[in-house]
Amino acid sequence: MKEVEVKARASLEDVRRKLSKLGARRIRVEVQEDLYFSHPCRDFAESDEALRLRVVGGEVELTYKGPREPGRVKSRVEVTVRLDDLERALAILSYLGFKELATVKKLREVYVLNDVEVCLDRVEGLGEFVEVESRGASSRELVELLEELGAGELVAETYLELVLRRSSTPPNS
Amino acid sequence: MKEVEVKARASLEDVRRKLSKLGARRIRVEVQEDLYFSHPCRDFAESDEALRLRVVGGEVELTYKGPREPGRVKSRVEVTVRLDDLERALAILSYLGFKELATVKKLREVYVLNDVEVCLDRVEGLGEFVEVESRGASSRELVELLEELGAGELVAETYLELVLRRSSTPPNS
Repeated sequence: MKEVEVKARASLEDVRRKLSKLGARRIRVEVQEDLYFSHPCRDFAESDEALRLRVVGGEVELTYKGPREPGRVKSRVEVTVRLDDLERALAILSYLGFKELATVKKLREVYVLNDVEVCLDRVEGLGEFVEVESRGASSRELVELLEELGAGELVAETYLELVLRRSSTPPNS
Repeated sequence: MKEVEVKARASLEDVRRKLSKLGARRIRVEVQEDLYFSHPCRDFAESDEALRLRVVGGEVELTYKGPREPGRVKSRVEVTVRLDDLERALAILSYLGFKELATVKKLREVYVLNDVEVCLDRVEGLGEFVEVESRGASSRELVELLEELGAGELVAETYLELVLRRSSTPPNS
């Protein structure tokens, strides 16, 4: 399944107000804890892939993400399976040589506006973002929607990349 | 979880009769289809590990098996998670570089005798086997039980190894 999404920095309070005016529905709020792994013999930073275990609402999901296609709008292969146990999933990944690389923890509010999913994310250590995703709308429409919501600069990097960059920056720089 | 088991060639009809006399209960019969994978950068034949997707009764399980400890009795680390979808699990493994190595398909009847699980396996292309497994009994007791059930020679190899050896043997040898 191809995922097409655009993300931007934003003040979530402003975005919430604008979503409400546009008649968007908030369908859920959840804490997502994402563990990212390195591959035993492939440099995912180089190949632009990712392997993630997500814990959300007591559920555990394993997701593979393929390389992003070029552009501000994110389009990439994404495949997810649900697993019945976190500890055993971690053990299997570890035995196979996958190493925990970083954790991204966020509070996500999910809204629906027509056929677009709008996520308001407060990401631990990174700040506030709004992400829009759709299988029907064009990438141009998604960017326009972000502008309409008053979002700031577009962010092409993933949360993982932002977290890794942050942790490689000395605290006083 | 450590798994301790012993396997032997057997005539299942004989074993069934003996199990019945000993008062064993048959608790289930199932078709197990096992897909084994090679690791993207580690030789599992060398490291004596295995990664298996098992499809049984509509359920999908992923199992990692660690190296066997020496001896006729099989003792190795084994960790299993249940997955919610076979096709997506296959896709993720494939994207990560795991390749399908072989399939082992068997009809398994599972009996319980005291604290021992006795499996009567008819394995496609390999024949009939009986496997005993317990977390309580000693390995000596397991071997004695196999003798009591009239089983033949002990088999230290896994079904995967037997299948791989068979497929590398020319048909007329």
